[in-house]
Amino acid sequence: MADPVAHEGTLTFLIGGARSGKSRHAEVLTTAHPAPWTYIATAQAYDDEMRERIALHRSRRGEGWATIDAPLDLAGAIETLPDGRPLLVDCLTLWLTNHMLAEHDVEAECRRLADVLSRPRGPWFVVSNEVGQGIVPDNALARRFRDAAGRLNQQVAAVAETVLLMVAGLPLKVK
Amino acid sequence: MADPVAHEGTLTFLIGGARSGKSRHAEVLTTAHPAPWTYIATAQAYDDEMRERIALHRSRRGEGWATIDAPLDLAGAIETLPDGRPLLVDCLTLWLTNHMLAEHDVEAECRRLADVLSRPRGPWFVVSNEVGQGIVPDNALARRFRDAAGRLNQQVAAVAETVLLMVAGLPLKVK
Amino acid sequence: MADPVAHEGTLTFLIGGARSGKSRHAEVLTTAHPAPWTYIATAQAYDDEMRERIALHRSRRGEGWATIDAPLDLAGAIETLPDGRPLLVDCLTLWLTNHMLAEHDVEAECRRLADVLSRPRGPWFVVSNEVGQGIVPDNALARRFRDAAGRLNQQVAAVAETVLLMVAGLPLKVK
Repeated sequence: MADPVAHEGTLTFLIGGARSGKSRHAEVLTTAHPAPWTYIATAQAYDDEMRERIALHRSRRGEGWATIDAPLDLAGAIETLPDGRPLLVDCLTLWLTNHMLAEHDVEAECRRLADVLSRPRGPWFVVSNEVGQGIVPDNALARRFRDAAGRLNQQVAAVAETVLLMVAGLPLKVK
Repeated sequence: MADPVAHEGTLTFLIGGARSGKSRHAEVLTTAHPAPWTYIATAQAYDDEMRERIALHRSRRGEGWATIDAPLDLAGAIETLPDGRPLLVDCLTLWLTNHMLAEHDVEAECRRLADVLSRPRGPWFVVSNEVGQGIVPDNALARRFRDAAGRLNQQVAAVAETVLLMVAGLPLKVK
Repeated sequence: MADPVAHEGTLTFLIGGARSGKSRHAEVLTTAHPAPWTYIATAQAYDDEMRERIALHRSRRGEGWATIDAPLDLAGAIETLPDGRPLLVDCLTLWLTNHMLAEHDVEAECRRLADVLSRPRGPWFVVSNEVGQGIVPDNALARRFRDAAGRLNQQVAAVAETVLLMVAGLPLKVK
């Protein structure tokens, strides 16, 4: 008989501004669990700036990580993971951007993702950006993105066991 | 002899970014008190986007709420409330925008509002936006708005009994 | 023999959005120590708006303060301070802006500053802005600034004994 506890997991949600140390702190938390670790990257390299950032993150990780690229089908990528595997998803706002640029049904995608994240099967760590604490953006697309990102963050935080707000590299426990 | 305690109230101030769940959490806190509840809306529907947002908020509330529109004379609207009435004001940044667009004396208006809010006569909940945690805006009006909003938030937080920072739908107690 | 404890100090880092009450709270904390207090200003008055803001801050301080202007050589200015002197640095993001506009080696400057701040010789208070919680800025310079500011804030928070996030004039303890 399979051990029912073996399938249990926990979801930790890390939210913060740009360069708040979210990715690094999530790496520290993930690697506190035994390897192998899975890293799901949602970034798409549209330009050199982004390519550099991706390469930098990748070089900082190192041995013990399996990297999966999932710019769009993030829920599907998570579903294929073996039970008990430590997982780091970085990050939700880039994934959301990819769906908005592709003009997909963002609400449906977010619901599907939140549903998958509500049943963690290992120590799962998910990173996202806080983008709503500045001035209302001038352009309508940016406003729509800001709204969608805020709603997604609320959905994921609602199903997470732990929520951390990253401030200057330090975690502030929200939940 | 009137019970002097009957006039005592508490002010709870909820501050957060766009789509951080401020309004919803404030509704939950307000409706934890017995109906009827008063909702003071400060929004003015300049365009379709705003009209949609207002309609959405209104439909989410429902029975038990009396709605008062007070895009400018918010202090006056609050002063007419009966003692002991649960109140939700949503939100201060839209009210401030209305006064700035009308080129009123914003400092005087903010002082008057903070003064009224410093004497709550029931369980009062006031919602506002954090707008100062992004890059310095390009245009001078946005900078002036950001400064005025920050100052107003400080004034209201100073007289509030409880201050909550909303992060991804979750309250973080600041005071 | 000199008392080795006499050279010990503490670093308190205050981070917050625009008009979040950072400067004022830092002044309160600094003046809780005996005068004289040193204020290191990093602002450069490029325009009238900035000149006004500097004059306002200066007039709010008052007796007991010695003001040093250090728009660029902040580490040097701190190093000349006598031991035990209460210090307020306001603020790191303006200092960073000055170096970026001068096209200096920002990484090297930040490392040097963080190094000096890691050895406080009195009750030192350092103010900085959170600028990363809005929408990704349109222009590349603003993005570079946002990244550099976030990294600097992390470096300083890492060596600080106490880190406070300012929200509507109120401190939230992060560390």
